[in-house]
Amino acid sequence: MTENRNDAAALLPDEQADDLQNGYYLIQSKNSFRFGADAVLLADYARNVRENDRLIDLCCGNGIVPILLAAKTPCRDMTGLEIQEESTRLAKKSVAYNHLDDRIRIIRGDVKDAPAIFGASSFDAVTCNPPYMIGNHGLKNPNESVAVARHEILCTFDDIAKTASALLNTHGKLFLVHRPFRLAELFTTLIRYRLEPKRMRLVFPLVDREPNMVLIEAAKGGNPRLKVEPPLIMYRAPGVYSDEIETIYGRRPPCPES
Amino acid sequence: MTENRNDAAALLPDEQADDLQNGYYLIQSKNSFRFGADAVLLADYARNVRENDRLIDLCCGNGIVPILLAAKTPCRDMTGLEIQEESTRLAKKSVAYNHLDDRIRIIRGDVKDAPAIFGASSFDAVTCNPPYMIGNHGLKNPNESVAVARHEILCTFDDIAKTASALLNTHGKLFLVHRPFRLAELFTTLIRYRLEPKRMRLVFPLVDREPNMVLIEAAKGGNPRLKVEPPLIMYRAPGVYSDEIETIYGRRPPCPES
Repeated sequence: MTENRNDAAALLPDEQADDLQNGYYLIQSKNSFRFGADAVLLADYARNVRENDRLIDLCCGNGIVPILLAAKTPCRDMTGLEIQEESTRLAKKSVAYNHLDDRIRIIRGDVKDAPAIFGASSFDAVTCNPPYMIGNHGLKNPNESVAVARHEILCTFDDIAKTASALLNTHGKLFLVHRPFRLAELFTTLIRYRLEPKRMRLVFPLVDREPNMVLIEAAKGGNPRLKVEPPLIMYRAPGVYSDEIETIYGRRPPCPES
Repeated sequence: MTENRNDAAALLPDEQADDLQNGYYLIQSKNSFRFGADAVLLADYARNVRENDRLIDLCCGNGIVPILLAAKTPCRDMTGLEIQEESTRLAKKSVAYNHLDDRIRIIRGDVKDAPAIFGASSFDAVTCNPPYMIGNHGLKNPNESVAVARHEILCTFDDIAKTASALLNTHGKLFLVHRPFRLAELFTTLIRYRLEPKRMRLVFPLVDREPNMVLIEAAKGGNPRLKVEPPLIMYRAPGVYSDEIETIYGRRPPCPES
């Protein structure tokens, strides 16, 4: 399909266009942060965003979340905000490659400046797959671009919650993926910025293992009542995806007649 | 076994001594709040309390949690605090019936007064299976004793966290069972009183259902880092307990040779 893509999006030698199995491709390079299951699960968790919602993906990296949402939802007005130059370049290139310029715009900028860039209460939905690791904790990848995507070097979770709250309308929704070990802090921080956790799902590699991801939906100005959903189990046996993960990764929901 | 029990604990006509399958009995009456799976799971979650720990069970009701802990742990200094007269009477009667007076004392009193009754920093562990429902929310049982056990009529979760924090030593532990829909509020309230959530387990009726209980261990003055444990699944099929629940309910852990 490469020949049908936008000429402005011609690939460089270290780049490749990975088939997302949903009609779109993502351009990734060997040296940049590559998307993982967390981005796929986050996009699926936000799949009920509507056609006229204005959505922003904070820390959008190579643009994977808005591109997945372009396939999963009818949303027509998506923004990706990313601070790193190389990731921003790749995200813009993927948008052009998929002819999604009319639905997705990629902006380079700092999460902390987003309310000034876009204005307060200017979005109906925020998605974010933020850096998970606190400051200098744990080993950092020597590749600085990857370290910034994984560690809270350029922005903290507090920055993200503060910005999301400022950007959202009342009752606007924030969709997050994060690590369970920070759950108590995530909830406390969200509530401090009037982002009430409304829905949560833990992701377990196997049914008898500890979860390695948590998906959260929070509503700005919502009432306190959390719906904790059934566990999302990644593998039904080592190396074998569960049916639900097959569906999420697949091109579309299974047809009723199949 | 009834004939071996303390004479002071002779049963009234509406009382019965239920076999806990662990060597002990619990005296319950038709009109009072009867223990459920939540008390059993809470006692199991606190099973690592040590022989010399001073433990208090807040809102102890008919004394089920300390009596279960007497079978599960070597703890020798347990206190049950209960505000309702009839529940306190039954709890004392069960303690006497089981000859546990040297390990468990039952005190009638208000959770809010506990720091004044017992003194600050006077316990190493607190357990609590509190009323789950907020104020007047939902239907109340017309039996007032049951309503007080289920609804936050006489004490709120804030009261419990505040009291637990006052009663605990630094690094002392609080073990809680509660409802998942209040999880965000539980974490926020615990952290407000310097009770850092350290361990959490969600209890699911079946693997594809929403959880109906959450078990939490918090440490006074602990560092922020939560261990979210594998899901605890109650039934492997409708009506059939999972192996783990069988073990928790059973008399003792399975023998290695069995």
